[in-house]
Amino acid sequence: MKTRTERSSRFFTVHHEAKDCRARTGVLKTAHGDIRTPVFMPVGTQGSVKTISNQELVEAGAQVILANTYHLTLRPGEKVIGEAGGLHRFMSWNRPILTDSGGFQIFSLATLNKIRDEGVDFRSHIDGSRHFLTPEDVIRIQRTLGSDILMPLDECVKYPAERDYVEKSVALTSRWAKRSKDHWESLFRGNGEAHPGILFGIVQGGTDTTLRKRSARELIDMDFPGYAVGGLSVGEPSDVMYGILNVATEKLPKEKPRYLMGVGLPLDLFEGVSQGVDMFDCVVPTRNGRNATVFTSEGKLLLRGASYTRDFRPVDERCPCYGCRTYTRAYLRHLFNAEEHLAGRLAALHNLTFFIQLLDSIRRAIEEDRFTEFRREFEAKGDFL
Amino acid sequence: MKTRTERSSRFFTVHHEAKDCRARTGVLKTAHGDIRTPVFMPVGTQGSVKTISNQELVEAGAQVILANTYHLTLRPGEKVIGEAGGLHRFMSWNRPILTDSGGFQIFSLATLNKIRDEGVDFRSHIDGSRHFLTPEDVIRIQRTLGSDILMPLDECVKYPAERDYVEKSVALTSRWAKRSKDHWESLFRGNGEAHPGILFGIVQGGTDTTLRKRSARELIDMDFPGYAVGGLSVGEPSDVMYGILNVATEKLPKEKPRYLMGVGLPLDLFEGVSQGVDMFDCVVPTRNGRNATVFTSEGKLLLRGASYTRDFRPVDERCPCYGCRTYTRAYLRHLFNAEEHLAGRLAALHNLTFFIQLLDSIRRAIEEDRFTEFRREFEAKGDFL
Repeated sequence: MKTRTERSSRFFTVHHEAKDCRARTGVLKTAHGDIRTPVFMPVGTQGSVKTISNQELVEAGAQVILANTYHLTLRPGEKVIGEAGGLHRFMSWNRPILTDSGGFQIFSLATLNKIRDEGVDFRSHIDGSRHFLTPEDVIRIQRTLGSDILMPLDECVKYPAERDYVEKSVALTSRWAKRSKDHWESLFRGNGEAHPGILFGIVQGGTDTTLRKRSARELIDMDFPGYAVGGLSVGEPSDVMYGILNVATEKLPKEKPRYLMGVGLPLDLFEGVSQGVDMFDCVVPTRNGRNATVFTSEGKLLLRGASYTRDFRPVDERCPCYGCRTYTRAYLRHLFNAEEHLAGRLAALHNLTFFIQLLDSIRRAIEEDRFTEFRREFEAKGDFL
Repeated sequence: MKTRTERSSRFFTVHHEAKDCRARTGVLKTAHGDIRTPVFMPVGTQGSVKTISNQELVEAGAQVILANTYHLTLRPGEKVIGEAGGLHRFMSWNRPILTDSGGFQIFSLATLNKIRDEGVDFRSHIDGSRHFLTPEDVIRIQRTLGSDILMPLDECVKYPAERDYVEKSVALTSRWAKRSKDHWESLFRGNGEAHPGILFGIVQGGTDTTLRKRSARELIDMDFPGYAVGGLSVGEPSDVMYGILNVATEKLPKEKPRYLMGVGLPLDLFEGVSQGVDMFDCVVPTRNGRNATVFTSEGKLLLRGASYTRDFRPVDERCPCYGCRTYTRAYLRHLFNAEEHLAGRLAALHNLTFFIQLLDSIRRAIEEDRFTEFRREFEAKGDFL
């Protein structure tokens, strides 16, 4: 039985809310089509979901993919993608694209020279070249890329971090968020563009509840079209992550979409959904796949194991992916041991299919008022950590 | 205008012969279907054409693929593939498979302990384990694999080599060929098996014309169902290869299929066809693809080049492969520079499509009595070396 809750904002409509937790389904409207939420978004950092073709992404049911502004700015560069007609055309992907600002990468991959109020001065991790990016630059670049969902430049603090540092960082992220929103609005104000992309605010604040609340409140005051929670899943224990997620999201307006950045494993996805998160991304399906770990309806399999030498069953009998329709565990094990690239490709595609279908099942369960039941069943089935 | 020449043997029928050279078309009948010749066979050494799925091989038009007895014997082993029900089932490929004996690999990859008349004693290149294989073992293993086309154990001498060494080697290869054929016949004689696989004799003899002739004569006397020319394209100049190919093939019975092992580049394929070769295999399409070199109807492209940065055309406008239908040179260049595995995969698939279609075009040209004309046009178009 579906009941429309009629919560909606400019780009997002909540369709159905669970009665026993904050789980909800909804639709996010983008220039490249609607995204049904909750959704898992495959990660295509450099404009390619590792080893996987667009055709395969579509077959796996991917509604939207991620790309990274930092990586694409360094290579192939804003100009090349601009000349191609934007990232969708450059990579021949015509469904929605969310671009992360690259804040996380500037603070982890790049050699940092100086964070100033104006922006951030860093050296490329590829060739050491020096770059300076302001929050305005990052918005401009994402508009050149033609991103459907944009993230503002933010500072993602390491775990653990000193409270003083996190407090200053939250203030900086808020100032940058304000400038990002102003610049985003200035770009489409009056130019008649049909869809300006959807800009999210990113809640930071490390593992400090007071600072997380402050960050959320400051961003809420700026009235972003959507809200992301950043700086989680960076090494803190699960219970800390779940607690901070709760604090970070409790005051967010319910009619706006919520995105938990970089998370996560299947059990994290269930927890996130139960706390009202609508969007997830994680490199786990592709990265773990390349390392011979596959997720199945019965739990994880480490395909290099000798026990699969003569296991002539598919990875997951219930999975509709090409690999499961075609090949056996024994064959995949052989390919991994023989260092054949096809192995990682098939495992990555399988895992993406698994994660995307898991969110499809979660959406159905929410609509049918049995999300918590579905979660309990899933958690009882196997080891998914 | 097609004229049937009515040359045929147990497994092979010649359909049409050129008037101005030895080029011909034909059909090789195997237990997994007919192979129209001349044919290019993708190489799946370890039971996988590198980076490419079976579905993609079928889309590329692959009629038959290669696998390697040496590699598969070491990993995953004869027993595992036997328990899977043979190599076709193990790798889920239901078109024909040709298995090389592994002679070439034993003499190049493995650490050789001793070549005896009985067989060859070597250490695995994977784990150093010691193995002893006789010509009879190699036939038995290929029957367990369920190969459609079998190669006997042979010695592939290095280039250059001393005449004395090559002479002794040819004698050994002939003795092994006789034992291989006897063993092959003993395996299906009286057991009612529908199709015993097709055993080829391999002409060796290095670059010595007398020894090549002797090797060919000795194998012809044994009346093999097909003949391969081995030990070419191992470092000798093209003109030497072409001359030796001529000597090695001139006395081969015209009603039997001919296979030029490990060759080659597009111009080598034309030369081979003009000398009456029916089958080719080479790692060039997949290996060069992974290294960013693609073959097109206008010649080779080295996709890492800066000139492709803003080249928003497909790799080859005339190519029907998934990559050419979907992505641009600029995007592929970006993926190669960003070390994204998708790049090598797309380039390998493109090159396989190019090589397979080139042989399709050659077959058509022979049937239409314009092979030499087609060859001249092709050679004039670009740099394919």
